[in-house]
Amino acid sequence: MNTPNIARNGHAGSPGTDTTRDVSLSETPSLIAASKVNGTNVYNRAGDSIGSIYDVMLDKRTGRVDYAIMSFGGFLGMGEHYHPLPWNALRFDDRQNGYIVDIDIDRLKEGPSFATSATPDWSDGLYGRRVDDYYGVTPATARR
Amino acid sequence: MNTPNIARNGHAGSPGTDTTRDVSLSETPSLIAASKVNGTNVYNRAGDSIGSIYDVMLDKRTGRVDYAIMSFGGFLGMGEHYHPLPWNALRFDDRQNGYIVDIDIDRLKEGPSFATSATPDWSDGLYGRRVDDYYGVTPATARR
Repeated sequence: MNTPNIARNGHAGSPGTDTTRDVSLSETPSLIAASKVNGTNVYNRAGDSIGSIYDVMLDKRTGRVDYAIMSFGGFLGMGEHYHPLPWNALRFDDRQNGYIVDIDIDRLKEGPSFATSATPDWSDGLYGRRVDDYYGVTPATARR
Repeated sequence: MNTPNIARNGHAGSPGTDTTRDVSLSETPSLIAASKVNGTNVYNRAGDSIGSIYDVMLDKRTGRVDYAIMSFGGFLGMGEHYHPLPWNALRFDDRQNGYIVDIDIDRLKEGPSFATSATPDWSDGLYGRRVDDYYGVTPATARR
Protein backbone atom coordinates (compact mmCIF):
# COMPACT_ATOMS: atom_id res chain seq x y z
CA MET A 1 0.00 0.00 0.00
CA ASN A 2 1.29 3.42 -0.83
CA THR A 3 0.53 6.28 1.49
CA PRO A 4 -0.19 9.35 -0.60
CA ASN A 5 -3.40 10.01 1.27
CA ILE A 6 -1.89 10.68 4.65
CA ALA A 7 -2.34 14.39 4.11
CA ARG A 8 -6.07 13.83 3.85
CA ASN A 9 -6.45 12.37 7.29
CA GLY A 10 -6.67 15.55 9.32
CA HIS A 11 -10.24 15.49 10.56
CA ALA A 12 -12.11 18.72 11.03
CA GLY A 13 -11.70 20.05 14.51
CA SER A 14 -8.83 17.75 15.27
CA PRO A 15 -5.37 19.09 15.96
CA GLY A 16 -3.93 16.89 13.23
CA THR A 17 -1.65 15.08 15.61
CA ASP A 18 -0.12 11.70 14.95
CA THR A 19 -2.57 10.07 17.30
CA THR A 20 -5.47 11.45 15.33
CA ARG A 21 -3.98 9.99 12.19
CA ASP A 22 -3.76 6.59 13.81
CA VAL A 23 -7.52 6.40 13.89
CA SER A 24 -7.94 7.15 10.22
CA LEU A 25 -5.16 4.82 9.19
CA SER A 26 -6.89 1.82 10.68
CA GLU A 27 -6.29 -1.18 8.51
CA THR A 28 -6.39 -4.88 9.16
CA PRO A 29 -6.21 -7.91 6.88
CA SER A 30 -9.96 -7.69 6.35
CA LEU A 31 -11.06 -4.14 7.22
CA ILE A 32 -9.93 -0.74 6.05
CA ALA A 33 -11.15 2.71 7.00
CA ALA A 34 -12.86 4.59 4.18
CA SER A 35 -10.42 7.39 4.81
CA LYS A 36 -7.61 5.03 3.91
CA VAL A 37 -8.96 3.07 0.97
CA ASN A 38 -8.28 5.99 -1.33
CA GLY A 39 -4.72 5.63 -2.55
CA THR A 40 -4.68 1.84 -2.43
CA ASN A 41 -2.67 0.46 -5.34
CA VAL A 42 -4.30 -1.30 -8.26
CA TYR A 43 -2.43 -3.94 -10.25
CA ASN A 44 -3.02 -5.82 -13.46
CA ARG A 45 -2.99 -9.61 -13.57
CA ALA A 46 0.75 -9.61 -14.20
CA GLY A 47 1.31 -7.71 -10.97
CA ASP A 48 2.23 -4.38 -12.54
CA SER A 49 0.93 -1.30 -10.78
CA ILE A 50 -1.50 0.42 -13.13
CA GLY A 51 -3.00 3.04 -10.86
CA SER A 52 -4.67 3.58 -7.55
CA ILE A 53 -8.07 3.97 -5.95
CA TYR A 54 -9.08 7.62 -6.11
CA ASP A 55 -12.39 7.18 -4.34
CA VAL A 56 -15.20 4.69 -3.92
CA MET A 57 -18.90 5.34 -4.38
CA LEU A 58 -20.96 3.98 -1.52
CA ASP A 59 -24.65 3.26 -1.53
CA LYS A 60 -25.83 5.42 1.37
CA ARG A 61 -28.52 2.98 2.41
CA THR A 62 -27.01 -0.44 1.99
CA GLY A 63 -23.45 0.56 2.85
CA ARG A 64 -22.11 -1.26 -0.17
CA VAL A 65 -19.42 0.00 -2.47
CA ASP A 66 -20.96 0.11 -5.95
CA TYR A 67 -18.05 1.67 -7.86
CA ALA A 68 -14.35 2.17 -7.37
CA ILE A 69 -12.95 5.22 -9.09
CA MET A 70 -9.46 4.52 -10.34
CA SER A 71 -6.84 7.09 -11.01
CA PHE A 72 -4.37 6.39 -13.77
CA GLY A 73 -2.60 9.67 -13.19
CA GLY A 74 1.07 9.26 -13.91
CA PHE A 75 0.50 5.79 -15.35
CA LEU A 76 0.17 4.81 -18.98
CA GLY A 77 0.25 8.38 -20.18
CA MET A 78 -3.44 8.70 -19.49
CA GLY A 79 -3.25 12.00 -17.67
CA GLU A 80 -5.41 12.94 -14.73
CA HIS A 81 -8.49 11.01 -15.66
CA TYR A 82 -10.67 8.99 -13.37
CA HIS A 83 -12.07 5.65 -14.40
CA PRO A 84 -15.04 4.25 -12.51
CA LEU A 85 -15.14 0.47 -12.33
CA PRO A 86 -17.85 -1.78 -10.98
CA TRP A 87 -16.67 -2.95 -7.56
CA ASN A 88 -16.98 -6.55 -8.74
CA ALA A 89 -14.17 -5.89 -11.22
CA LEU A 90 -11.72 -5.56 -8.33
CA ARG A 91 -10.26 -8.42 -6.36
CA PHE A 92 -8.26 -7.80 -3.21
CA ASP A 93 -4.83 -9.38 -3.19
CA ASP A 94 -3.31 -10.02 0.21
CA ARG A 95 0.21 -10.40 -1.07
CA GLN A 96 0.36 -6.99 -2.70
CA ASN A 97 -2.09 -5.40 -0.27
CA GLY A 98 -3.92 -3.90 -3.20
CA TYR A 99 -6.52 -4.65 -5.82
CA ILE A 100 -6.11 -6.65 -8.99
CA VAL A 101 -8.12 -5.61 -12.04
CA ASP A 102 -8.07 -8.30 -14.70
CA ILE A 103 -9.10 -6.09 -17.60
CA ASP A 104 -6.94 -5.27 -20.60
CA ILE A 105 -5.33 -1.87 -20.42
CA ASP A 106 -6.76 -0.85 -23.76
CA ARG A 107 -10.23 -1.69 -22.56
CA LEU A 108 -9.71 0.38 -19.43
CA LYS A 109 -8.33 3.26 -21.48
CA GLU A 110 -11.40 3.34 -23.68
CA GLY A 111 -13.87 2.91 -20.83
CA PRO A 112 -16.00 5.60 -19.20
CA SER A 113 -13.77 8.22 -17.64
CA PHE A 114 -13.86 11.80 -16.60
CA ALA A 115 -11.54 14.67 -15.88
CA THR A 116 -11.81 16.83 -12.81
CA SER A 117 -13.28 19.56 -14.98
CA ALA A 118 -16.18 17.36 -16.14
CA THR A 119 -17.41 15.17 -13.34
CA PRO A 120 -20.19 12.77 -14.17
CA ASP A 121 -23.74 13.09 -12.94
CA TRP A 122 -24.42 9.88 -11.02
CA SER A 123 -27.82 11.00 -9.82
CA ASP A 124 -30.15 9.36 -12.32
CA GLY A 125 -28.32 6.03 -12.38
CA LEU A 126 -27.60 6.32 -16.10
CA TYR A 127 -23.88 6.93 -15.65
CA GLY A 128 -23.56 3.94 -13.34
CA ARG A 129 -25.41 1.75 -15.80
CA ARG A 130 -23.10 2.92 -18.56
CA VAL A 131 -20.16 1.75 -16.47
CA ASP A 132 -21.87 -1.57 -15.73
CA ASP A 133 -22.74 -2.08 -19.38
CA TYR A 134 -19.26 -1.25 -20.61
CA TYR A 135 -17.67 -3.82 -18.32
CA GLY A 136 -20.48 -6.30 -18.80
CA VAL A 137 -21.42 -6.76 -15.18
CA THR A 138 -24.74 -7.05 -13.42
CA PRO A 139 -25.99 -3.54 -12.62
CA ALA A 140 -25.25 -2.45 -9.07
CA THR A 141 -28.92 -1.94 -8.36
CA ALA A 142 -29.63 -5.58 -9.25
CA ARG A 143 -26.79 -6.95 -7.14
CA ARG A 144 -28.46 -5.96 -3.89
CA MET B 1 -25.02 17.64 5.82
CA ASN B 2 -22.25 19.61 7.39
CA THR B 3 -19.02 20.08 5.54
CA PRO B 4 -16.18 19.78 8.03
CA ASN B 5 -14.37 17.31 5.83
CA ILE B 6 -13.74 19.60 2.90
CA ALA B 7 -10.19 20.07 4.07
CA ARG B 8 -9.62 16.34 3.69
CA ASN B 9 -10.45 16.23 0.02
CA GLY B 10 -7.11 17.28 -1.39
CA HIS B 11 -5.94 14.16 -3.16
CA ALA B 12 -2.29 13.33 -3.37
CA GLY B 13 -0.71 14.87 -6.38
CA SER B 14 -3.67 17.11 -7.06
CA PRO B 15 -3.40 20.86 -6.96
CA GLY B 16 -6.28 21.06 -4.51
CA THR B 17 -8.35 23.19 -6.83
CA ASP B 18 -12.08 23.56 -6.60
CA THR B 19 -12.57 21.31 -9.58
CA THR B 20 -10.65 18.56 -7.83
CA ARG B 21 -12.92 18.93 -4.84
CA ASP B 22 -15.97 18.54 -7.01
CA VAL B 23 -14.97 14.97 -7.73
CA SER B 24 -14.62 14.06 -4.08
CA LEU B 25 -17.81 15.78 -3.10
CA SER B 26 -19.87 13.61 -5.41
CA GLU B 27 -23.17 12.87 -3.79
CA THR B 28 -26.52 11.81 -5.16
CA PRO B 29 -29.72 10.65 -3.50
CA SER B 30 -28.38 7.11 -3.45
CA LEU B 31 -24.59 7.27 -3.78
CA ILE B 32 -21.92 9.11 -1.83
CA ALA B 33 -18.18 9.15 -2.28
CA ALA B 34 -16.25 7.56 0.57
CA SER B 35 -14.32 10.79 0.82
CA LYS B 36 -17.55 12.57 1.64
CA VAL B 37 -19.36 10.17 3.94
CA ASN B 38 -17.17 11.24 6.83
CA GLY B 39 -18.81 14.25 8.42
CA THR B 40 -22.36 13.20 7.60
CA ASN B 41 -24.68 14.14 10.43
CA VAL B 42 -26.21 11.54 12.73
CA TYR B 43 -29.57 12.15 14.42
CA ASN B 44 -31.59 10.44 17.09
CA ARG B 45 -35.15 9.34 16.48
CA ALA B 46 -36.45 12.73 17.61
CA GLY B 47 -34.40 14.42 14.91
CA ASP B 48 -31.79 15.96 17.20
CA SER B 49 -28.24 15.98 15.89
CA ILE B 50 -26.18 13.76 18.18
CA GLY B 51 -22.94 13.56 16.26
CA SER B 52 -21.43 12.75 12.89
CA ILE B 53 -19.75 9.99 10.96
CA TYR B 54 -16.03 10.08 11.66
CA ASP B 55 -15.13 7.17 9.42
CA VAL B 56 -16.51 3.88 8.15
CA MET B 57 -14.77 0.52 8.22
CA LEU B 58 -15.00 -1.27 4.89
CA ASP B 59 -14.49 -4.94 4.27
CA LYS B 60 -11.70 -4.87 1.69
CA ARG B 61 -12.99 -7.91 -0.15
CA THR B 62 -16.75 -7.57 -0.18
CA GLY B 63 -16.82 -3.78 -0.34
CA ARG B 64 -19.37 -3.64 2.45
CA VAL B 65 -19.35 -1.18 5.28
CA ASP B 66 -19.23 -3.23 8.47
CA TYR B 67 -18.97 -0.42 11.03
CA ALA B 68 -19.61 3.30 11.16
CA ILE B 69 -17.45 5.19 13.59
CA MET B 70 -19.41 8.02 15.15
CA SER B 71 -17.93 11.11 16.64
CA PHE B 72 -19.76 12.70 19.53
CA GLY B 73 -17.15 15.44 19.81
CA GLY B 74 -18.83 18.63 20.90
CA PHE B 75 -22.09 16.83 21.57
CA LEU B 76 -23.40 15.53 24.88
CA GLY B 77 -20.26 16.49 26.72
CA MET B 78 -18.67 13.23 25.65
CA GLY B 79 -15.40 14.71 24.52
CA GLU B 80 -13.43 13.48 21.56
CA HIS B 81 -14.39 9.86 21.69
CA TYR B 82 -15.25 7.63 18.79
CA HIS B 83 -18.06 5.14 18.96
CA PRO B 84 -18.16 2.30 16.46
CA LEU B 85 -21.64 1.12 15.55
CA PRO B 86 -22.68 -1.83 13.43
CA TRP B 87 -23.71 -0.43 10.05
CA ASN B 88 -27.14 -1.98 10.48
CA ALA B 89 -27.76 0.37 13.40
CA LEU B 90 -27.84 3.31 10.98
CA ARG B 91 -30.71 4.22 8.72
CA PHE B 92 -30.34 6.86 6.04
CA ASP B 93 -32.93 9.63 6.19
CA ASP B 94 -33.53 11.52 2.97
CA ARG B 95 -35.20 14.47 4.61
CA GLN B 96 -32.29 15.29 6.87
CA ASN B 97 -29.66 13.92 4.47
CA GLY B 98 -28.07 12.10 7.36
CA TYR B 99 -28.32 8.94 9.41
CA ILE B 100 -30.75 8.14 12.18
CA VAL B 101 -29.56 6.00 15.06
CA ASP B 102 -32.46 4.74 17.14
CA ILE B 103 -30.45 3.89 20.24
CA ASP B 104 -30.80 5.59 23.60
CA ILE B 105 -28.11 8.13 24.28
CA ASP B 106 -27.15 6.46 27.54
CA ARG B 107 -26.67 3.18 25.76
CA LEU B 108 -24.46 4.86 23.16
CA LYS B 109 -22.48 6.60 25.88
CA GLU B 110 -21.74 3.35 27.63
CA GLY B 111 -20.95 1.43 24.45
CA PRO B 112 -17.53 0.54 23.08
CA SER B 113 -15.57 3.70 22.38
CA PHE B 114 -12.04 4.86 22.04
CA ALA B 115 -10.02 8.04 22.20
CA THR B 116 -7.47 9.01 19.61
CA SER B 117 -4.75 8.01 22.01
CA ALA B 118 -6.02 4.43 22.35
CA THR B 119 -7.28 3.15 19.02
CA PRO B 120 -8.75 -0.34 18.99
CA ASP B 121 -7.13 -3.33 17.37
CA TRP B 122 -9.64 -4.55 14.80
CA SER B 123 -7.33 -7.18 13.39
CA ASP B 124 -8.49 -10.32 15.17
CA GLY B 125 -12.19 -9.58 14.88
CA LEU B 126 -12.67 -9.52 18.64
CA TYR B 127 -13.22 -5.79 18.82
CA GLY B 128 -15.81 -5.93 16.06
CA ARG B 129 -17.61 -8.77 17.79
CA ARG B 130 -17.62 -6.79 21.00
CA VAL B 131 -19.39 -3.97 19.14
CA ASP B 132 -21.85 -6.42 17.56
CA ASP B 133 -22.55 -8.06 20.89
CA TYR B 134 -23.08 -4.79 22.71
CA TYR B 135 -25.67 -3.62 20.20
CA GLY B 136 -27.17 -7.06 19.83
CA VAL B 137 -26.78 -7.43 16.08
CA THR B 138 -25.72 -10.31 13.91
CA PRO B 139 -21.92 -10.27 13.59
CA ALA B 140 -20.67 -8.59 10.44
CA THR B 141 -18.93 -11.76 9.34
CA ALA B 142 -22.22 -13.65 9.44
CA ARG B 143 -24.14 -10.98 7.54
CA ARG B 144 -22.23 -11.63 4.33
